[in-house]
Amino acid sequence: MNVRLNAPEDRHAPQRILMAPGPSNVHPRVIQALIEPLVGHKDPSFLAAMEDTAALLREVFQTRNRATFALPATGGSGMEAALVNVLEPGDTVVVANAGFFAQRMVDICTRLTGVNVVVVPGAWGEPVARDAVLSAIRQHRPRALAIVHGETSTGVEQPLEGLAAECHAQDALLVVDAVATLGGVRLPVDEWEIDVCFSGSQKCLSAPPGMAPITISDRAMRAIEARHTPVASWYFDLRLHARLWDTDHSYHHTSPVLSVYALREALRLVVEEGVDARIARHCLHAMALGQGIEALGLQQFACQGFRMPSVVTALTPAGVSARAVRKLLLDSLNVEISVGLGERSDGMWRIGVMGHSAQQANVMLVLTGLEQALRCVGLTPGGSGARAAAEVYEHTRL
Amino acid sequence: MNVRLNAPEDRHAPQRILMAPGPSNVHPRVIQALIEPLVGHKDPSFLAAMEDTAALLREVFQTRNRATFALPATGGSGMEAALVNVLEPGDTVVVANAGFFAQRMVDICTRLTGVNVVVVPGAWGEPVARDAVLSAIRQHRPRALAIVHGETSTGVEQPLEGLAAECHAQDALLVVDAVATLGGVRLPVDEWEIDVCFSGSQKCLSAPPGMAPITISDRAMRAIEARHTPVASWYFDLRLHARLWDTDHSYHHTSPVLSVYALREALRLVVEEGVDARIARHCLHAMALGQGIEALGLQQFACQGFRMPSVVTALTPAGVSARAVRKLLLDSLNVEISVGLGERSDGMWRIGVMGHSAQQANVMLVLTGLEQALRCVGLTPGGSGARAAAEVYEHTRL
Repeated sequence: MNVRLNAPEDRHAPQRILMAPGPSNVHPRVIQALIEPLVGHKDPSFLAAMEDTAALLREVFQTRNRATFALPATGGSGMEAALVNVLEPGDTVVVANAGFFAQRMVDICTRLTGVNVVVVPGAWGEPVARDAVLSAIRQHRPRALAIVHGETSTGVEQPLEGLAAECHAQDALLVVDAVATLGGVRLPVDEWEIDVCFSGSQKCLSAPPGMAPITISDRAMRAIEARHTPVASWYFDLRLHARLWDTDHSYHHTSPVLSVYALREALRLVVEEGVDARIARHCLHAMALGQGIEALGLQQFACQGFRMPSVVTALTPAGVSARAVRKLLLDSLNVEISVGLGERSDGMWRIGVMGHSAQQANVMLVLTGLEQALRCVGLTPGGSGARAAAEVYEHTRL
Repeated sequence: MNVRLNAPEDRHAPQRILMAPGPSNVHPRVIQALIEPLVGHKDPSFLAAMEDTAALLREVFQTRNRATFALPATGGSGMEAALVNVLEPGDTVVVANAGFFAQRMVDICTRLTGVNVVVVPGAWGEPVARDAVLSAIRQHRPRALAIVHGETSTGVEQPLEGLAAECHAQDALLVVDAVATLGGVRLPVDEWEIDVCFSGSQKCLSAPPGMAPITISDRAMRAIEARHTPVASWYFDLRLHARLWDTDHSYHHTSPVLSVYALREALRLVVEEGVDARIARHCLHAMALGQGIEALGLQQFACQGFRMPSVVTALTPAGVSARAVRKLLLDSLNVEISVGLGERSDGMWRIGVMGHSAQQANVMLVLTGLEQALRCVGLTPGGSGARAAAEVYEHTRL
C-alpha cells in the first residue's frame, strides 16, 4: 500500500496497567466475549443478548426502570442524551458545577435553543454546597437538576441523598452523571429516586470504551413523552432507544454487537462479584492508595470526607510536572496514570481505582512508581507510600 | 447471581454468514486486532493508531481532506453529525428523498430549530431525478443538498457526478450518505467535490458496527467555522472531533480504542486489496447474485441501470412472506439476509454484497437457500439461480 503509516502491520499495542480514570483494564472473560461470532443486529441471539444486558444493567444500577439500556456511543454521550431529551425551549435547568464534567453539562445545555441555564458554582476539590443547590431548585423551579456524582476531574464524590425529594417537590427531574461511579461507588438509583442516570462502559464496569449505560425513571419517560417539541437529536432520542431495547426491538441503529457482548460479560462479572462487594473493594484500594500518597508527602486534591473511591487525586509538589511523571510511569513501568483536566492540568495527578484495575498489585506499583519518580526529579519522599498502603491492606478485611 | 438471563454464561453466539446489508462478516485479522491490548485514549501508541486510521480513511474516501476521521458511534451518527454541523437556524436544506434513509435525513433536519426542509421526492426503487434536484438547488439556493449515495432500503445507487458543480455555484454544500457504499462502490470524494461524506464501519469496510467514518472538505469546515450559532450537539460537534484526531489530539471523549484498532485493520485490508479491485469484486458478486435471482423467477426491486453493487433487492412472489424466508435461511443455513424497511417490509428481500461477505461461496449459498425456500412454500423456481450465477463467474475475470 502507498499510505505512510506510523505502525507497520506487525507492530502491536503495548500492554499497560491502566490506572488512569478510565479506561480500566478488561478482564480476560471480556476479551473472550469480544471475539464471539459477529451476528446481525436483528439476529434472535443478539436480541436475547440485549435483553440480558438490560437485565444486568438494572441489577447494577439497582433499579426496576424498564428504560434501562446502553447507548451506542462513549460515556459522554449519556450526558448529551439525558439533557437533550429532558430539556426543551423555555425550560430552566440547574447545574451544580464544581469540575470539568459539570462544566461540560453547562456547555451542552447552553447549546440547546431556548434553555435557561442556572449554574450553582462550587470550588474544585469540594462538593457543591447542598443548601445552595436546594435553594436554587426552590427559587428557579427548573425542569431538571443536573449534577455529577463522581467528578473525575477533582476526585470528589457529591452526596446525592435527599436531592430527589426537593426536585420532585418542585416538579423537577434529577439527572445524575455516574460515568465514573457506576459499579464502583454506592449508587442505588431507585432508593435515591434518580430520574436519569448515565455512565460509561470503560470505568468501574471495565468493559471497553464505547458504550454509555443509561437508566430513565417512569417519571422522566412521561416527561419526555409530554414534550411540546421533538427531541433535537435523532441519534440520542431516548424513546427510539427504549423501543429498540424493549420487547418490539424496532430498528433505530445498527447495534455495536461486539461491544454489547463485551459489556454484557463485564456486567456479569460485576453481578457475580456482587455490587456491594465490588464497592467495598473500590473503597479499600482507594483508601490504600490515598494513605500511600499522603505517606509520600503528597497532598490529596479532593477534600476529606468527599473523596470518591474510584478516582484518587493528588497535587504535584512545587516544580514537578505532572505530565513528566505520567510519562515516566508509562515508559518505565507500563503503568498509566492521568494528569489534571482544565487549568490545573500539569499540577495534579488523577489515578483511577476502577473495576478490574482496582487490585492491590496495581496500587503498590503506582506508589512505587510515584516514589521513584519523585526521587528522579530530586525530591525526597516523606516516607514509603508502599508501606503505608500495605498497612491498610494488613488491617482491613474485605 | 439472581438476575434471570436468556443466555447462561456458557452459551455462545451462532456463527452466521452475514448477507444482510450490514453488518458484514469480519476478516480474521480484524478479530485479532480487536484483542490487541487495551491502552488509554491518550497513550502515545493509540494516538499513532488514530493517525494511521485517518490516513487509511483518506485513501479509501479518495480524499486529501485533513478533517477525515471516524465518529465514536454507529453509521447513523454520521448523518446526524453532518446535518447538525452544516445547518443552523434560518438555513434551507434540500433533501433528495427516495428511500428509508433519505427519509431519516428529513427527520433529522426537521428536528433542527429554524431549518427549512425542501424535499425532492422520488419513487422507491429509482434514483431521484437529477433535473428535479438541480432545479431545487437553483430555486432555493440552500445551505446544503443532502443526498443518499446508496439507498440501502431500495438497492438504488444515486448518480452523484456533477451535483457538486451546481451546489457550489449556488454556494451550497454537498452532503452525501455513503454508509452502504464506501469501500464497495466507486466514490471518489475529491473528484466529485463532495463536502461532507459519512459512512459506517460495518458495511463494505467489514469492521464491527460502532463507528462512523466521515470526511469534511475545507469548504465545509470553513462554513462550519463561520456559523452564527453553536452546533446544537456537543457530542457531534465536528470541530471538536477534528481537533481530537488532528495533531494536538485535545480531549473530547474517551475513544473506543478497540473499535479503532478493528477499523484500522479493516481499512488496511481495503487498501491492501486496492479500492478499485474491491469495487470490481463487489460489482462481480452483485451481478452474479442479481442474475441468479432473476433466474429464480424473482424480480429485482431496484430499477435497471441504477442497481448498487453492495445491496441487491428483490420482490417476494405473491403470497410469500419475506420474513418467513429470512428465518428459514437463518435457521437452516445460518445465512442472514434482510427483509424490507418501512411499508414494504414483508414484501421484499435486501441482500448485502459487502466487504468480506462478498464471496462467491456466500452468493451461491444465498441462491441455493432462496431456491429451497421457494420450493418449501410450494413455488417452482423459474430456473436455477446457482447455475445462472455460476455462468457469470465463469465468464468474468476480475
